[in-house]
Amino acid sequence: MLINIKFKDGYAEFINTNKLPSKYEVIKTKDPDRLIQAIKDMEIRGAPAIGAAAALCLALVALYKEYKSNEELFELLNQYSEKLIKARPTAYNIYASINRILTNINVKEESLAEKVLNIALKICEEDIKANLKIAEYGKDLIKDGDKILTHCNTGALATVGVGTALGIISKASENKKLFVYVTETRPKLQGSRLTAWELERQKIPYKIITDSTAGFLIKNGEINKVLVGADRILLSGHVINKIGTFTLAAISNLYRVPFFVAAPLTTLDLKSKIEEVKIEERSPEEILKIKRYWLAPKKAKALNLAFDITEPEFIDAIITDVGIINRPVQENIYKIIKKY
Amino acid sequence: MLINIKFKDGYAEFINTNKLPSKYEVIKTKDPDRLIQAIKDMEIRGAPAIGAAAALCLALVALYKEYKSNEELFELLNQYSEKLIKARPTAYNIYASINRILTNINVKEESLAEKVLNIALKICEEDIKANLKIAEYGKDLIKDGDKILTHCNTGALATVGVGTALGIISKASENKKLFVYVTETRPKLQGSRLTAWELERQKIPYKIITDSTAGFLIKNGEINKVLVGADRILLSGHVINKIGTFTLAAISNLYRVPFFVAAPLTTLDLKSKIEEVKIEERSPEEILKIKRYWLAPKKAKALNLAFDITEPEFIDAIITDVGIINRPVQENIYKIIKKY
Repeated sequence: MLINIKFKDGYAEFINTNKLPSKYEVIKTKDPDRLIQAIKDMEIRGAPAIGAAAALCLALVALYKEYKSNEELFELLNQYSEKLIKARPTAYNIYASINRILTNINVKEESLAEKVLNIALKICEEDIKANLKIAEYGKDLIKDGDKILTHCNTGALATVGVGTALGIISKASENKKLFVYVTETRPKLQGSRLTAWELERQKIPYKIITDSTAGFLIKNGEINKVLVGADRILLSGHVINKIGTFTLAAISNLYRVPFFVAAPLTTLDLKSKIEEVKIEERSPEEILKIKRYWLAPKKAKALNLAFDITEPEFIDAIITDVGIINRPVQENIYKIIKKY
Repeated sequence: MLINIKFKDGYAEFINTNKLPSKYEVIKTKDPDRLIQAIKDMEIRGAPAIGAAAALCLALVALYKEYKSNEELFELLNQYSEKLIKARPTAYNIYASINRILTNINVKEESLAEKVLNIALKICEEDIKANLKIAEYGKDLIKDGDKILTHCNTGALATVGVGTALGIISKASENKKLFVYVTETRPKLQGSRLTAWELERQKIPYKIITDSTAGFLIKNGEINKVLVGADRILLSGHVINKIGTFTLAAISNLYRVPFFVAAPLTTLDLKSKIEEVKIEERSPEEILKIKRYWLAPKKAKALNLAFDITEPEFIDAIITDVGIINRPVQENIYKIIKKY
């Protein structure tokens, strides 16, 4: 099985997804700043994967950075937490990992570094399990013969385990015949580069489409279901996910095509209000260039928003590791929260 | 002034838009097959421009191909008309040019080649005039301070004159402060490559966005108006245009942002029903590669639809060279047809 990110022999180890599909490159590092760079440059991407990377980053700080006392380590962990949030401010899983580590360690702890590592490893393991549960809950929503649209990459390359939305598709394809439409997902092309790569490996039939083709196929009845991941889900039911998600949801809603979001509970932000969520704006160069090749005039300006926000009324269900949150998702999120 | 396509000193002359923005290349040819190639490969693109190119193609046939009689020339013109339609089957302006030439020449004509050339030149001149009229009618729809979204390229590089939707923007910008959001328009990037290039030349402020960013900006009130061109408009009010247009129209409609289509009457197809319109499917390679650089696994499959269809109920007005067709566009198209 493909493991996108892990801790092995004292190293954090991850696949550099920027190099795929042309090159399969595994990076090993003991340097927490290297992990932050990887998150920033999207070598590691996908909300659950960067949540795990954030946890491992703090583990590397605890294991390898120099400090003289637990107090100093605490100070370092706080510094690195801020760096992590700055690297990619939207995906909630980074915050979830940081909170989990910082609230579960004690300055009086004897082997504090070990404790941090253990929590980080647990976060990784739990994502693997969460993925399997999401796939298990989600697979029954898929019917034999379904033509499913998915956006961005939500597979093994976006998580620690089998993936979220793409994990459901993989699981369902074990005994159902499916066809997947993959949006290329500009500007970073996670659909063309990563989702297509994963579907090729799994021999699931698919076609890549440009992002702006999706709406027309939805209207024409060419797509039965839309399945996407999430970078952050608010208590209000708003889903923050890869730019383009909102448009897919709105068009799906207009033509009564079920729109599903798949994400572990670590993506759920219980505190923030919609207006407090920072939508990451990335470099215009991601839109204006591919490798060294310019796609636009060299002086051209571009606005590169990485995410958008989808209203709960456009969402038919959120598939989580503790069950399916059905429409109306806002009300039903509260119910599930009370239980956990 | 930039003239994208013309007839000069016995040659058809055109800008190879595939080379822009990195290279400004003008091609001169006396070979009608070279023009067909240019249409097929989208060196010449944009419905009015390929309408003009089709007319000049038939003129080159009449001027330079070998034939022994007017009957043989007629036969040749019919053969080339078929080739032209096959090269790009969706844009109506190709059909309009062919029909106009074939129905206005007579096998008894003494100087038949000259007659064909004259009609072709007239088609080119009339497009220049139609563009100016569209700009004149359309400019009053634009207010000072407007933030306008446009899709694909509808400027001088898409027509013989100043353009359609982009022609309106240029005209309005003469005495109004505007900001333009330009969709990059995958896969051929006419927005990034061509519209941005034209806006730079005209010093109109703009930003390029990925195609899937547009919907989010429309919802957020970041865009006041959407202006696009058309490749074919049916009597029913359906607009066939660059893939992605339908999605922009549907989202605009949902958030009550005015959605305008700009096109000359030569784009109006009075005969075809919606189910008779062939939506051109282009090579998957346009999605999977940029130059020699692969964006997806080499075995990847892709569906590359060049156009989509927008229902009349999503359209606030169609701006033509004979006036503005307001909502409900279907009814009002009939009224304008009766007048012309």
